[in-house]
Amino acid sequence: MEFTLEHTSEGSKARAGVLKTAHGQIETPIFMPVGTAGTVKGVHARELEDDIKAQIILGNTYHLYLRPGMSIMEQAGGLHKFNSWNKPLLTDSGGFQVFSLGHISKMSEEGVRFQSHIDGSYHMFSPEKSIDIQRSIGADIIMAFDECTPGDADYNYAKKSLDLTQRWLDRCMIQMDKTEPKYGHEQSLFPIVQGCVYNDLRSRAAENVKTYNADGYAIGGLAVGEKEDVMYEMVDVVNSILPEDRPRYLMGVGTPINILEAIDRGVDMFDCVMPTRNARNGMLFTRKGTMNMRNKKWENDFLPVDPDGTSYVDHTYSRAYLRHLVISGEMLGAQISSIHNLAFYVWLTNEARRRIKNDTFKSWKEEMVQQLSVRL
Amino acid sequence: MEFTLEHTSEGSKARAGVLKTAHGQIETPIFMPVGTAGTVKGVHARELEDDIKAQIILGNTYHLYLRPGMSIMEQAGGLHKFNSWNKPLLTDSGGFQVFSLGHISKMSEEGVRFQSHIDGSYHMFSPEKSIDIQRSIGADIIMAFDECTPGDADYNYAKKSLDLTQRWLDRCMIQMDKTEPKYGHEQSLFPIVQGCVYNDLRSRAAENVKTYNADGYAIGGLAVGEKEDVMYEMVDVVNSILPEDRPRYLMGVGTPINILEAIDRGVDMFDCVMPTRNARNGMLFTRKGTMNMRNKKWENDFLPVDPDGTSYVDHTYSRAYLRHLVISGEMLGAQISSIHNLAFYVWLTNEARRRIKNDTFKSWKEEMVQQLSVRL
Repeated sequence: MEFTLEHTSEGSKARAGVLKTAHGQIETPIFMPVGTAGTVKGVHARELEDDIKAQIILGNTYHLYLRPGMSIMEQAGGLHKFNSWNKPLLTDSGGFQVFSLGHISKMSEEGVRFQSHIDGSYHMFSPEKSIDIQRSIGADIIMAFDECTPGDADYNYAKKSLDLTQRWLDRCMIQMDKTEPKYGHEQSLFPIVQGCVYNDLRSRAAENVKTYNADGYAIGGLAVGEKEDVMYEMVDVVNSILPEDRPRYLMGVGTPINILEAIDRGVDMFDCVMPTRNARNGMLFTRKGTMNMRNKKWENDFLPVDPDGTSYVDHTYSRAYLRHLVISGEMLGAQISSIHNLAFYVWLTNEARRRIKNDTFKSWKEEMVQQLSVRL
Repeated sequence: MEFTLEHTSEGSKARAGVLKTAHGQIETPIFMPVGTAGTVKGVHARELEDDIKAQIILGNTYHLYLRPGMSIMEQAGGLHKFNSWNKPLLTDSGGFQVFSLGHISKMSEEGVRFQSHIDGSYHMFSPEKSIDIQRSIGADIIMAFDECTPGDADYNYAKKSLDLTQRWLDRCMIQMDKTEPKYGHEQSLFPIVQGCVYNDLRSRAAENVKTYNADGYAIGGLAVGEKEDVMYEMVDVVNSILPEDRPRYLMGVGTPINILEAIDRGVDMFDCVMPTRNARNGMLFTRKGTMNMRNKKWENDFLPVDPDGTSYVDHTYSRAYLRHLVISGEMLGAQISSIHNLAFYVWLTNEARRRIKNDTFKSWKEEMVQQLSVRL
């Protein structure tokens, strides 16, 4: 894996770069659609590629481990083959979902014992196990197994949690060295910076991950309940320490505004379920603001869904029709909205890239942040 | 509207024809996907056209009348514009859904008073009202308002019901004459032959509809609980009376085998929710038999969904992946299965047409009926 930092925008820390993986290159900044259980909900692989222009998508280790399970995954030849996505893939470590979805029965130095949210069966995740599973899934970028510290954790808890995350990172790295990719292509492990909302812990965490000379670094444990300005402050602290020449991935963030603010602070990669989850609730993001498709005002609005939109659904269907589908609970409503929102998020990061390269990012961002706050 | 009977297959009553409508021509025999509430569930308009090769789709008058309602429909410029489908459309009369979904509060000579299944509001459908609504929806082919006699009705009930259907047909025809299409293109009304499972009533009904010299005729009230051989017998009785030079539409039927048997008996057009409804339950129709995707046997079958399939989903995704989606309750499972099943139904009627034209329909049909009964 190779990252080239192409340009940093004037008056901002916003960066344009190119990340080369075994399954193709990724132009950053980039938004990565989330394909939790091996599928971006409601969206065909063809639509991801042709209509949304996704360059990389996510899979969730926790979900894929429980279903279909690693025996099937290995027989398939990894997730790329299993879900017919031949471009770059990233998997999380399973840690976040174990803490948010699983029923934890025991947490120890060794790892986390938990019950499946599907059938209540018992399982154990450890740093070594997470790496082994991610080897079986075969994503191009894989993540360190960490404890995602709650946003409201007190300093002592956060410090102990970070200590554990750091020891677990060490074990992840050792397991990476001990094991080989299963499908013949390179996999890069990104360490995750934790430290909750505490400057000194975030600094220490950033300094620590840097020592591993990894192919890229992630910032985790944000957008988990803390205030937005605190999140931005933590991003600033961490990015002032992370090396310039490696990609930076802000995990699970966020709104379009969050993404622009984080790009402005030097973040390169993003993922979030918001575009698809909100789509399923009939909420659209556009460059003019948000649209709640349940609103009666769209009932007889026969204009295209989004005249500025980059995907075919924006121009094929009318707002009135989409509202009808959403109100009627029709699957197609969720499908159209999901394609639209994902295409919008990818456009947003692509446009940020273009603005970074021609040094107009900062003023464009300020305008966009105003516009994106509008409720249409 | 113009129907050309091109060929009748040797040793069968199976017919190949072409039906010309204001929105393009339909090659028969043909299967018409059902788009109940203005959408074929889970399927984009683009997929219907490019991947499923649908030549005509249905809309349901009952559903569209209740939601979005005729004010929106007329402002949109009719259903073609509303749901972005620019090829032929057919609407039913609303009668069948009133009887099956609505809560009927009063049935009289005038029509049917019922409560909406959505919000319990009261509405009245009459022959005149049904025609008016279908004028507002603007389908190329519209259906007479009838009483769909239950399959287990006794002779007296069936006779009285048919009498009413015949008087209602007369009123539909008068209303058609009194009104004009709303969007500048021709609409053709198909009368419906009822008569339950009674030969003499079916004969009388077929003789009666013939007197209207309509552009096409439908056979209704079948596949509603009667035995299959009785259904086929009724189709034989009716088709022996209906004119050769008009298309014949068997409403709401059925399994792939039902369709082949009815084609063999001279039916030209079909619709059914089975391909999409069964798809949402993980059941696929293929030319080698049916596949229950929940079955564990597909768990590690990495062959394409259907190597003989005509749609891209058949070759893009594996059986193991589709099973994973179905078991996980992922929308994409229903989407893939729906596209597959609809493409299969359309292929089946297209292939029947090809076999009719080269006089090999009968032997092909016999083979297919065997094959289609297999559970894979």
